[in-house]
Amino acid sequence: MSKVIKGGTIVTADLIYDADVLVENGRIAEIGKDLKGDEVLDATGCYVMPGGIDPHTHMEMPFMGTYSTDDFESGTRAALSGGTTMVVDFALPQPGQGLLDAIQMWDNKSTRANCDYSFHMAITWWGEQVFNEMKDATERGINTFKHFMAYKGALMVNDDELFASFQRVKELGGIPLVHAENGDVVADLQQKYLSEGNNGPEAHAYSRPPEVEGEAANRAIMIADMAGVPLYIVHVSCEQAHEAIRRARMQGKRVWGEPLIQHLTLDESEYFDKDWDHAARRVMSPPFRNKQHQDSLWNGLASGSLSVVATDHCAFTTDQKRYGVGDFTKIPNGTGGLEDRMPMLWTYGVGTGRLTMQEFVAVTSTNIAKILNIYPRKGAILEGADADIVVWDPAKEKTISAKTQQSAIDYNVFEGKHVKGLPRFTLTRGKVAVHDGEIRTEEGHGEFVKRPPNGPVNKALSTWKELTAPRKVERTGIPASGV
Amino acid sequence: MSKVIKGGTIVTADLIYDADVLVENGRIAEIGKDLKGDEVLDATGCYVMPGGIDPHTHMEMPFMGTYSTDDFESGTRAALSGGTTMVVDFALPQPGQGLLDAIQMWDNKSTRANCDYSFHMAITWWGEQVFNEMKDATERGINTFKHFMAYKGALMVNDDELFASFQRVKELGGIPLVHAENGDVVADLQQKYLSEGNNGPEAHAYSRPPEVEGEAANRAIMIADMAGVPLYIVHVSCEQAHEAIRRARMQGKRVWGEPLIQHLTLDESEYFDKDWDHAARRVMSPPFRNKQHQDSLWNGLASGSLSVVATDHCAFTTDQKRYGVGDFTKIPNGTGGLEDRMPMLWTYGVGTGRLTMQEFVAVTSTNIAKILNIYPRKGAILEGADADIVVWDPAKEKTISAKTQQSAIDYNVFEGKHVKGLPRFTLTRGKVAVHDGEIRTEEGHGEFVKRPPNGPVNKALSTWKELTAPRKVERTGIPASGV
Amino acid sequence: MSKVIKGGTIVTADLIYDADVLVENGRIAEIGKDLKGDEVLDATGCYVMPGGIDPHTHMEMPFMGTYSTDDFESGTRAALSGGTTMVVDFALPQPGQGLLDAIQMWDNKSTRANCDYSFHMAITWWGEQVFNEMKDATERGINTFKHFMAYKGALMVNDDELFASFQRVKELGGIPLVHAENGDVVADLQQKYLSEGNNGPEAHAYSRPPEVEGEAANRAIMIADMAGVPLYIVHVSCEQAHEAIRRARMQGKRVWGEPLIQHLTLDESEYFDKDWDHAARRVMSPPFRNKQHQDSLWNGLASGSLSVVATDHCAFTTDQKRYGVGDFTKIPNGTGGLEDRMPMLWTYGVGTGRLTMQEFVAVTSTNIAKILNIYPRKGAILEGADADIVVWDPAKEKTISAKTQQSAIDYNVFEGKHVKGLPRFTLTRGKVAVHDGEIRTEEGHGEFVKRPPNGPVNKALSTWKELTAPRKVERTGIPASGV
Amino acid sequence: MSKVIKGGTIVTADLIYDADVLVENGRIAEIGKDLKGDEVLDATGCYVMPGGIDPHTHMEMPFMGTYSTDDFESGTRAALSGGTTMVVDFALPQPGQGLLDAIQMWDNKSTRANCDYSFHMAITWWGEQVFNEMKDATERGINTFKHFMAYKGALMVNDDELFASFQRVKELGGIPLVHAENGDVVADLQQKYLSEGNNGPEAHAYSRPPEVEGEAANRAIMIADMAGVPLYIVHVSCEQAHEAIRRARMQGKRVWGEPLIQHLTLDESEYFDKDWDHAARRVMSPPFRNKQHQDSLWNGLASGSLSVVATDHCAFTTDQKRYGVGDFTKIPNGTGGLEDRMPMLWTYGVGTGRLTMQEFVAVTSTNIAKILNIYPRKGAILEGADADIVVWDPAKEKTISAKTQQSAIDYNVFEGKHVKGLPRFTLTRGKVAVHDGEIRTEEGHGEFVKRPPNGPVNKALSTWKELTAPRKVERTGIPASGV
Ligand SMILES: [Zn+2]
Ligand SMILES: [Zn+2]
Ligand SMILES: [Zn+2]
Ligand SMILES: [Zn+2]
Ligand SMILES: [Zn+2]
Ligand SMILES: [Zn+2]
Ligand SMILES: [Zn+2]
Ligand SMILES: [Zn+2]
Repeated sequence: MSKVIKGGTIVTADLIYDADVLVENGRIAEIGKDLKGDEVLDATGCYVMPGGIDPHTHMEMPFMGTYSTDDFESGTRAALSGGTTMVVDFALPQPGQGLLDAIQMWDNKSTRANCDYSFHMAITWWGEQVFNEMKDATERGINTFKHFMAYKGALMVNDDELFASFQRVKELGGIPLVHAENGDVVADLQQKYLSEGNNGPEAHAYSRPPEVEGEAANRAIMIADMAGVPLYIVHVSCEQAHEAIRRARMQGKRVWGEPLIQHLTLDESEYFDKDWDHAARRVMSPPFRNKQHQDSLWNGLASGSLSVVATDHCAFTTDQKRYGVGDFTKIPNGTGGLEDRMPMLWTYGVGTGRLTMQEFVAVTSTNIAKILNIYPRKGAILEGADADIVVWDPAKEKTISAKTQQSAIDYNVFEGKHVKGLPRFTLTRGKVAVHDGEIRTEEGHGEFVKRPPNGPVNKALSTWKELTAPRKVERTGIPASGV
Repeated sequence: MSKVIKGGTIVTADLIYDADVLVENGRIAEIGKDLKGDEVLDATGCYVMPGGIDPHTHMEMPFMGTYSTDDFESGTRAALSGGTTMVVDFALPQPGQGLLDAIQMWDNKSTRANCDYSFHMAITWWGEQVFNEMKDATERGINTFKHFMAYKGALMVNDDELFASFQRVKELGGIPLVHAENGDVVADLQQKYLSEGNNGPEAHAYSRPPEVEGEAANRAIMIADMAGVPLYIVHVSCEQAHEAIRRARMQGKRVWGEPLIQHLTLDESEYFDKDWDHAARRVMSPPFRNKQHQDSLWNGLASGSLSVVATDHCAFTTDQKRYGVGDFTKIPNGTGGLEDRMPMLWTYGVGTGRLTMQEFVAVTSTNIAKILNIYPRKGAILEGADADIVVWDPAKEKTISAKTQQSAIDYNVFEGKHVKGLPRFTLTRGKVAVHDGEIRTEEGHGEFVKRPPNGPVNKALSTWKELTAPRKVERTGIPASGV
Repeated sequence: MSKVIKGGTIVTADLIYDADVLVENGRIAEIGKDLKGDEVLDATGCYVMPGGIDPHTHMEMPFMGTYSTDDFESGTRAALSGGTTMVVDFALPQPGQGLLDAIQMWDNKSTRANCDYSFHMAITWWGEQVFNEMKDATERGINTFKHFMAYKGALMVNDDELFASFQRVKELGGIPLVHAENGDVVADLQQKYLSEGNNGPEAHAYSRPPEVEGEAANRAIMIADMAGVPLYIVHVSCEQAHEAIRRARMQGKRVWGEPLIQHLTLDESEYFDKDWDHAARRVMSPPFRNKQHQDSLWNGLASGSLSVVATDHCAFTTDQKRYGVGDFTKIPNGTGGLEDRMPMLWTYGVGTGRLTMQEFVAVTSTNIAKILNIYPRKGAILEGADADIVVWDPAKEKTISAKTQQSAIDYNVFEGKHVKGLPRFTLTRGKVAVHDGEIRTEEGHGEFVKRPPNGPVNKALSTWKELTAPRKVERTGIPASGV
Repeated sequence: MSKVIKGGTIVTADLIYDADVLVENGRIAEIGKDLKGDEVLDATGCYVMPGGIDPHTHMEMPFMGTYSTDDFESGTRAALSGGTTMVVDFALPQPGQGLLDAIQMWDNKSTRANCDYSFHMAITWWGEQVFNEMKDATERGINTFKHFMAYKGALMVNDDELFASFQRVKELGGIPLVHAENGDVVADLQQKYLSEGNNGPEAHAYSRPPEVEGEAANRAIMIADMAGVPLYIVHVSCEQAHEAIRRARMQGKRVWGEPLIQHLTLDESEYFDKDWDHAARRVMSPPFRNKQHQDSLWNGLASGSLSVVATDHCAFTTDQKRYGVGDFTKIPNGTGGLEDRMPMLWTYGVGTGRLTMQEFVAVTSTNIAKILNIYPRKGAILEGADADIVVWDPAKEKTISAKTQQSAIDYNVFEGKHVKGLPRFTLTRGKVAVHDGEIRTEEGHGEFVKRPPNGPVNKALSTWKELTAPRKVERTGIPASGV
């Protein structure tokens, strides 16, 4: 059954124009004037945009002995409700566990997804098995490999392992991702604050200052440069990390930075709230920063030194957060955001003039699709592309509240924020999952999206690195005497 | 008569895919597989890309008592020969002359153009007439206003005038352009070197050091920021100006920088050539810089801190250059480049891996069209777009030489450079102007391209500036006593 | 009659040690243990430091039709009361007035000074007379030449004049000073805000944003570099200007920056006070900035990118400030600070650990003396140096108040600030002007301090500039043919 | 027997004046006019300066199975010959060896020293014994603790150990030093190049690119900031590390950088010499860099972002260097320089105008003495200071050659460099060790110089860190409900 989105204005990363969109068999069949279809979706007064892609989520993630509460069902339902039509989750092997094993676990969990999804492969330890299975993972359609520079004793890998893995990623034509915080220093600062009796959620922020993030970002950039591979830095929260990225880019290095909607709109004062629950619910890594850091992130999006906006959606309930009463290091790290990313960014970005509409589409969808090498199947309003579409009503308003959300958790870090700009319809591969406020998701509708290696930036960088590689000096009669 | 470009790979600023292109009535009628048309252009093994746009040319320009040698006929013929399908020239009023008068003069000259063109309006003096006619110019389809911070006593305007004009441009929804060099300092340095007997072409470079350009760029950025208008800086030649642009962009300011293909590939050693003619032929402003500056420019293109590549094509013959024997200040400023911009950038950019193919299209065409607010009519391979297309053969090679060029001048600053990657066909609004090495241009085929004001960046910036404008403090009983 | 300062700890820009100081005939006769003299000044528990030098004051300055209220008598009395033993004022010619005439006027005013003083020579217009009299001024002991880049229509000089003057200063072995704000833009912004009804003191700040200061600083640096002369930038108030200075210094340029104690400790919120008088009394140029700018300035002092702390003391009474009711552009620009500079900097700098004691001495006295080329006659505790000494009691406290101050004005911008660290004794050329809270100044005691040209930095810079000057390319048979 | 240095001009870090210097009992007894003594040293036409201090030498150092060839006798003889009167060597424990043991070994070796010396304590492993003995080392007069971020598997410590050690150094009032290179990445690059057959000395440079140094410097700065301790970075060779230092300093962090005379004057082209010996003799870590890096270092000295000039003197003979034929990783790391540091810096710094004479004294002696907390006993020409004096003849010239040097090695990396400016006399604690070209050193004359902790910068920084430490949020009834 075909559908036609009628009367709207198409907004993409570089175009604004009036046209209807005909959807058939999960794809965009035609874009044009006066199109007809079996079902009409009235887009009058709306912008028809590529559905959002969130490149950074953790559904049902095992962490510190518990699981994040949103699973692939509720999580993707929350996503669709807010206009996001694809998520990329992280397949996380336990130390010692094989990559294929981990992928299998994530395959199992993701069968319930309401929208399309993909996985980043986490490299949480190093060994011959990991080295070998990275190739298998690539063949299964994973071209991104995540590395944790923090979470010492758990997920963290050291510089040696980073460099080995980055070199392997380069061979495979993939892109390394890093969670950039100096895990050694964080671990020591945690103990220092705890030992001083500083055990509340605010000490979580104290133990992960911007300097610690900036340092790790800078280090990862150097290691990627030595390996000759592009780099993607997740959840860039502060000027220090952003500065490292800008410095790299101005030297021609290929580095992308991903701020989160939370860091763009919430600040460190949340941790100083007198209500322990309030503060603990905002505990994530990196923590929220001050207004100067927020300005830095917004400016990065406008100027292109930062490329995409994500959420790191990893939702723990208040009960789970309370594991950390009396010891902030036991508060599960993570906040929600998947449902609110698009309206929050629209309201605080497009609504204020910090971003154009095209830039909004770029950072929520198109840039991500390009970096992940799935453009234009995803991230585009083009004939032949997947019909992952959001029909955005710029006049629709609401006040965010946990009471009315799709996410399974019992609070919302954006509680009380007023947003203007919300989906009228969200389509996932042609299926209308959100219909004018009504949720019509279908569990299991979502499919895994394979992502091929060797994107254009990888190829260009490899050419340049080969061209400028150091050359051996040819000598005869070594050693020769004389100075 | 329709034409179909068959068997090629379409490369745009964000896509690479195999498809045929059907051209009818000067536009792209269809993109798809197995298209048919009256005439077939075989694109096998080629990239089908948006024709180049050169945003910075001077055809038949009056300068220092002479005219640049390439007029709209030979200039656009040279452009098409190298894959460029649109040029933007500068309508230059004499001091005291009205803007409409100047436009009329440029209208007259441009009737002979072989490809489409547009004009930037130069603001070379300030007064009520200029203020008023800026609106007329806007209504005629000119949304960019050029300001010279150098050429003291001729084209230069001072800060007062810059600020007044930038504010006017903001009202009109346009974009100011600047030639950024401190004209006061340049004029004094010229006299200093001349008086020291330093009268050769190398002293042209000495009198316009990078510091002088960087300063002016920085100043223009501040003035545009105060006026609340985006800014476009032409011929960014050095790290100092690029640094000012990066610094502005990292603060969220909307500034674009335009390096020239000459500065990207030629360096200051040209001026030290023992042959006076060799050196004088390379005299342009800003002058060529050293390798460090070149690296800075290339890195800016890759990272997005610089946006477009132009030529400032302004060709003077050797005879004209010799006006300046014994006094470098009398050497007409300008070099050619229009014919070689695309193959040189491809060879030194894409060929080395410094740029991806998509980035090549972006900086030679698409980004320019967007900034000039004529996208996607120009700069795109999309149905409905003007059929300004280059069919690029990556295997085609040549050695650049004045002997075989289209340009009317008697030398070529790239003489002897070997390029790989050249047009097989160039289409201007559907007409095949270059056919496999044969020039088939048609004098007068080119049309003026109107460019509307109020592009998306203008609108977003105005919103943000209004939102953050300083507010009056409300007081009562002024003055009140007490500290 | 000799005096001995007994029992104190000498603190200089690089030393801390216990010793007595014998003062005879206005000079330091001996430093050592167990010295004897006719009069004993008990320095037990105190630091014996070089008296402060304020390189930036305006006594009885004509401005906007009035005179600043502190004259050389009350001003230097205030200075001594706060531990400052020398001031450098600005001899300001009216446009068209000769330099020697202006010096004569300042000579007349300064006969009443209680402590030593010197003059900077202001270059407020350009012409042959000015060019010639700059040499006379140098011979009279003035090696610093001040230039206003703001105050359009009054004191402001343009780039042409700046460059001419800087080159002249270079020849004379002097140092140019600049008040760095873009006067064209300020004048236009003033009119803009006034015309919008924004006529209160806060609009003074709005019309002089940090960008306008940073731009001018950057421009002055470039012009000084072209002239081959060091540069001193007065009242650096913001990160933008500081950034320009750091950027220059990192390129080996010889540039010094002078923050004011006001900008280090007061912020822009003062202008938002509901009391018009409160706000107007803080009107000075540049205006106060926000906390981020303050941090930048403090960090500059600690790291050495900023060199000295001054006051720009230019005190107008509340009645004078009220000239500007209804039109902020008529509020006389200037605030006091001379009396409070040393205790405020000690309290907020040394007291917090932002500065060491040695750095305190350096930035309040020694660095200034070196830059002004009067070290070690001033700025030192050395045998043979002038006995300009402050005996600093780190335990002495007070709350700053206009009620108890020496300055002639009726308020104090630091009103209510609590300081810890105050003079026990202040000696001006051996005379005890402050004796344990009692003022014993002597009108007319102060003498003019001649300052010779050609300091070491001038000489080194000239050597380097000569060594790296561009060289003429030797050619024969010009023009030769061929490319 | 007293000595008087007559007729010279005293040059210190901040003064230039004519005076005689009387030396008695190893100290400066008097400075003044017309002094008399038993022996007269004619300083006519000369500058009398504090003897040089080299803060970075390795005498008779065990490395890769051999010992560096200059021991405390020949090394300090070379030092004195070039005007350096004190060296600071590194006491290096083997992994597992106690600190006191290592100090004992260095005590034994240093008994032969011809001039005064001190030790930095190297922290080459971490454990309770190290933690405890750091206090003992402090009590023995060592306030600086060196950490190697490179030499993996040998001297290198990881981030965890760095942070623990830096915190311990902070408690003790000392200063951590770092050799900043990412040892993990270096080790891997070494293997990579070797495995590619790139086994010559140039691959030593390839495996230690500037990025690797800059990263480690940046990391050490962050860790020191977290520990609240100042930081000293040895052998800063490149812009990347210098940039990290500048960035830290502009944020108020207390970081000092030490370039070497080799990096200031020699460049990477040395490694491309066709003569293997020539290249191998220049192998040191970090390796020589290109001209842009040199400019950066010189500018840092002039602007104060870099503080001192050292040598890392660690001399291996050609025979020792040849251990690495066929495998560059086996070439002993190190070059000489102790004898030539002062004349080379004078010639290329003061002689060119890049540095003033006062800056020369500061960076070769006074700044070092201040940082090491032995000023003014060392680094000063003041009454009471140790008579470590160089009488510098600015007219004396020579061409550097291994044939005429004091150092025990068989070559000189500065071979053939012409220097102008050499010692006429060098005095070590009053003893004339160099007398007009004649060497009169006395083995064993040198003494260990104790250096107390808690210098002024340490104290100020601790105050600031305490003042700005994060504070616990006081809460009641945790956890409270509600968001
Ligand atoms: Zn993370
Ligand atoms: Zn995550
Ligand atoms: Zn131009
Ligand atoms: Zn031009
Ligand atoms: Zn001023
Ligand atoms: Zn002033
Ligand atoms: Zn080392
Ligand atoms: Zn060393």
